[in-house]
Amino acid sequence: MTKLPAVDPAAVPEKRGSIYPEPFRSRIGDRAKRRLGEACGLTRFGVNLVTLGPGGQSALRHWHTLEDEFVYVLTGEVVLVTNDGEQTLGPGMCAGYAAGNKDAHHFINRSAAAATYLEIGNRADGDNAFYPDDDLMWVGDENGVHAAHKDGRRY
Amino acid sequence: MTKLPAVDPAAVPEKRGSIYPEPFRSRIGDRAKRRLGEACGLTRFGVNLVTLGPGGQSALRHWHTLEDEFVYVLTGEVVLVTNDGEQTLGPGMCAGYAAGNKDAHHFINRSAAAATYLEIGNRADGDNAFYPDDDLMWVGDENGVHAAHKDGRRY
Repeated sequence: MTKLPAVDPAAVPEKRGSIYPEPFRSRIGDRAKRRLGEACGLTRFGVNLVTLGPGGQSALRHWHTLEDEFVYVLTGEVVLVTNDGEQTLGPGMCAGYAAGNKDAHHFINRSAAAATYLEIGNRADGDNAFYPDDDLMWVGDENGVHAAHKDGRRY
Repeated sequence: MTKLPAVDPAAVPEKRGSIYPEPFRSRIGDRAKRRLGEACGLTRFGVNLVTLGPGGQSALRHWHTLEDEFVYVLTGEVVLVTNDGEQTLGPGMCAGYAAGNKDAHHFINRSAAAATYLEIGNRADGDNAFYPDDDLMWVGDENGVHAAHKDGRRY
């Protein structure tokens, strides 16, 4: 029985769903996240334990302007897709994406079994994300940020 | 064979040693780190894969003023020591330490086998660390930061 500052990930609720509008939200498929960093009271970076079912995706392929990201595969097998193509990563393999590097990335689970990985990202005010493969961008106005087509029309 | 932005941790050199003066340096014992985040070109936070041999310690028991820290145990067993006492963490358990929380922490490997874990911390200019159990502090002058006794004498 762990107590803070230690946390048993099994005791952290799974969150499903995505902030993407359709048709992108459905494409993410079977993805569940446990927010481990938040469970420990951290605010400067996030740490999620992600379970990706067969066919699931970590995110749309994207890159961040101000946030470094890092992923470490725990179990199963995922395909990392970047501008250069694909590579398969198994347990113990990792990848890192520096803020501002336009090499967009995501994981796809093309296997028949679930995969789990840790994803870490710092939190930075003013961060934006871009999606080279998809007709999606984020537009901010005085009421906040909303999803838009690349020609500016809102979803 | 992985290629960037993916990295095989086995291909990242192990670093040993500590910035602590004696008698603290020796107390750390058998500890080796692979700087995975740096290997991926990340600068906003660090991710180390640490191997702690029997008797080894992650660090002196400490807390940070401006840096959140997070640890995730991969293999073996470590004892987490905080102000509240001790708890043993095995594979899949995690812990997080928020910047500015004075609950000092470290891992000790009291088992007969090596343990491995990931440690993550954001990088923050002006961060300091304090050591409630030990006669050690960091003092900055115009030439940089040096290790000192708590009465101000340099090591």
